[in-house]
Amino acid sequence: MWFCKLNGALKGASKTGTKTILARRPITSLVPGEPNEPKILTDVPGPVSKALFEKLNSINQSGSVQLFANYDKSIGNYLIDVDNNVFLDAFTQISSVPIGYNHPDLLTVFQDDHKLRALINRPATGVFPGHDWPEKLRSILLNVSPGLPQVMTMMCGSCSNENAYKALFFSYRNRQRGENVDFTELESSSCMINRPPGAPQLSLLSFHGAFHGRTMATLATTHSKPIHKLDVPSFNWPIAHFPRYKYPLEDNTRENHAEDDKCLEEVEDLIVQYGKNENPSVAGIVVEPIQSEGGDNEASPRFFQGIQQIAKRHGVGLLIDEVQTGVGATGKMWCHEHFNLESPPDIVTFSKKMLTGGFFHSLDMRPKQPYRIFNTWLGDPGKLYLLEAVLNVIKQQNLLDQVLRTGSKLKLGIATIEKEHPDLLNSTRGRGTFLAVNAADTELRDKIVAKLKLKGVIVGSCGDHSIRLRPSLTFQEHHADILLDKLQQTINEVK
Amino acid sequence: MWFCKLNGALKGASKTGTKTILARRPITSLVPGEPNEPKILTDVPGPVSKALFEKLNSINQSGSVQLFANYDKSIGNYLIDVDNNVFLDAFTQISSVPIGYNHPDLLTVFQDDHKLRALINRPATGVFPGHDWPEKLRSILLNVSPGLPQVMTMMCGSCSNENAYKALFFSYRNRQRGENVDFTELESSSCMINRPPGAPQLSLLSFHGAFHGRTMATLATTHSKPIHKLDVPSFNWPIAHFPRYKYPLEDNTRENHAEDDKCLEEVEDLIVQYGKNENPSVAGIVVEPIQSEGGDNEASPRFFQGIQQIAKRHGVGLLIDEVQTGVGATGKMWCHEHFNLESPPDIVTFSKKMLTGGFFHSLDMRPKQPYRIFNTWLGDPGKLYLLEAVLNVIKQQNLLDQVLRTGSKLKLGIATIEKEHPDLLNSTRGRGTFLAVNAADTELRDKIVAKLKLKGVIVGSCGDHSIRLRPSLTFQEHHADILLDKLQQTINEVK
Repeated sequence: MWFCKLNGALKGASKTGTKTILARRPITSLVPGEPNEPKILTDVPGPVSKALFEKLNSINQSGSVQLFANYDKSIGNYLIDVDNNVFLDAFTQISSVPIGYNHPDLLTVFQDDHKLRALINRPATGVFPGHDWPEKLRSILLNVSPGLPQVMTMMCGSCSNENAYKALFFSYRNRQRGENVDFTELESSSCMINRPPGAPQLSLLSFHGAFHGRTMATLATTHSKPIHKLDVPSFNWPIAHFPRYKYPLEDNTRENHAEDDKCLEEVEDLIVQYGKNENPSVAGIVVEPIQSEGGDNEASPRFFQGIQQIAKRHGVGLLIDEVQTGVGATGKMWCHEHFNLESPPDIVTFSKKMLTGGFFHSLDMRPKQPYRIFNTWLGDPGKLYLLEAVLNVIKQQNLLDQVLRTGSKLKLGIATIEKEHPDLLNSTRGRGTFLAVNAADTELRDKIVAKLKLKGVIVGSCGDHSIRLRPSLTFQEHHADILLDKLQQTINEVK
Repeated sequence: MWFCKLNGALKGASKTGTKTILARRPITSLVPGEPNEPKILTDVPGPVSKALFEKLNSINQSGSVQLFANYDKSIGNYLIDVDNNVFLDAFTQISSVPIGYNHPDLLTVFQDDHKLRALINRPATGVFPGHDWPEKLRSILLNVSPGLPQVMTMMCGSCSNENAYKALFFSYRNRQRGENVDFTELESSSCMINRPPGAPQLSLLSFHGAFHGRTMATLATTHSKPIHKLDVPSFNWPIAHFPRYKYPLEDNTRENHAEDDKCLEEVEDLIVQYGKNENPSVAGIVVEPIQSEGGDNEASPRFFQGIQQIAKRHGVGLLIDEVQTGVGATGKMWCHEHFNLESPPDIVTFSKKMLTGGFFHSLDMRPKQPYRIFNTWLGDPGKLYLLEAVLNVIKQQNLLDQVLRTGSKLKLGIATIEKEHPDLLNSTRGRGTFLAVNAADTELRDKIVAKLKLKGVIVGSCGDHSIRLRPSLTFQEHHADILLDKLQQTINEVK
């Protein structure tokens, strides 16, 4: 059969009608107590969700709500809603649940009296940190750093990027100014009224299709959907094209190679152009390893190597935003570790499955003065303790290997369905379980996602017509089987 | 004696040397287990703090750290550090600890299994909220709303303001566009590349001396210290002068009245001017009820009434930033409730002592479309449950009354010391326990703050030469006695 060529993981695969694509493994869930399968009892959203929606929507704009969940009952990879519908969750709170719901190792974290008190007595960690803060930053965060020696903690993805952007500007101005040169009086006075030279005309280069957050500076580098950006003032910052590849990659090497070159050339052109004319000079490049919200757009290691070379050549910082891609879902702790960069990027930002926001950075990106990267809390020790438990589970259970096994099966299964229905699906892609496939158009995509939900499988949408999978790291082969079965059924219904 | 004229609260005051300014009350702490007084055993920072500083500073820029605390031992109003020094804490993690350290009612919150699971299974509340989310937003947050019907939750003060700023822009453009008028195709396409009309040329008016955060848009409205702003690109947004009063207020009514008028006139002039020329039109005014970081600059109810009238007259939104001033420290839940505004402001932002960030807003400020005020988590249920416990304690123990009693004693005591040393201190001011006094200059201020710390009292600095008090709401008269004694001793030493 055609798909036997695809991948060694297919060995032992059998195909009996549309029901089972790949051989089943025995069900031994990594999170005890999981149901065996989804079970849908009502419409989705069900009547209880609908009633709660009315209540919530009277309090704020709640049009984005899909359903109300019962987090007391949800378990492992299964989200259980207020109508007792049981969903296999392959979206996991927009990719932010690392090891499933109600993991026993997380439920016990705050039985430790010290950790409970660290949670309750949330300190201003930049002024009065707790006694184990340095040790915890080192043993928990620096322990998983992608080769960068420094780390700052923040609260969420947006504020991690906002603060990292400032670090890019600081370091750029520091290089311009020269080592140990103090701020001028004019800089100090002019910045207070938002004017140059103290508030310099500088920019960050971002990419079409990018998503880095919705606060105003991160939004100026976000270019995925108009509804995020409409009516918000912005900066005149350069935007380059991110590669758009043809799939399958192995059949389109030359075109995709040329796409890389074109995009890299544009990046360099923009940096040169913004340095010359009245546009603000580029102080840094910000980029996702995979454009997630923008449609799971991947780029090659070669592209990222090129970006880094351009950044170095022009003396601008390189920030890789791993808010969505980080923490193992691609089979490596950080997605950019797939790129074989010659040195770590200058900054790597994180949040979501890290539970705490923050960023790793080089010594060059470290501000010389205190209070420049600062806020009241600068992170939250309570989140750090939860992350500690998460990272222990990832290590003990070899979840990155699990991700590769599950991802291999999932990707192959989706590719198989795509091959059978090339009019409906295309461009199966991704690494680990961080996978996506395109529907032929937006309407079909939305229909597939909605039908999957009615069959008890939650997946995400991204870009114009992509379906994204963002399961937790405890998503196993038997979960993949269920997802593939439901996808196959759905495709059979919409074809 | 002169100070008998000041206030009824002084009745029974005695003055024996410099040691006791006001009569002592029996010590019955609201938080059980508090020490009776500060106790300093080492230099501050002590040797253990110094060693930990070296460790932390090797991980990130830690120059802002004062000492390392032991949050297992800290209790009530007393912060205990890693060198076993015991401090009376009148700064409380930059004004963010509402009811003291290790309050018994907070330590038990997560013994409730449902609340623990809500903490562990942190949802994307904008997509899959938990079943009690609407009820908790209503019973916890809307229950303390300053007359506004809607509330959004966020993570911190900066992102609360960032998102509230977007709401100001949305509503302004909505009024310009007209009810139920959809975005144009040009708006949708232009916003994606950060250009008008989709990314409009609009501004927010802020005040010199203001502090609204350090992310890039909030930083564009922050004007308190150069070190916050240097090297960060900014927006050409209008900045008006905030009143600077002469103290005591009762002796300077006419001058302060004129100061209000001058500042209000400038606000209106700027709005008119920015609407006319190439500068971006003003979509909203953002203001603190008391400029805190900027030096505890107060303005009168009359000033704020004037601001609101100007905002209404020009069709721009009014945002009052209660991140630092909210939650009872001024004797009212929200400081702006002192101002007798004819209607609530359009938006009130909060964080710090609220434990969760967020903002209350009017129906006008509610976006018509979903996903415009949105992020992965949109708050954190775990913080909401802690806040619930805090608000219950505030109510059960009538802590707002306690704040007024303690504040009255504290303010009178500081005014008394000021009167004795007008060359060293001036401008005692504030409401409730949200109090400040100026030192003659920056050097003296820093000396006083440092000496107080060596005597076991932690206070904050703000502005160029102000000392700010930000005790928790459980700070009682006997704590005030200690603080006043130590301040008196300190002043005697520096005079």
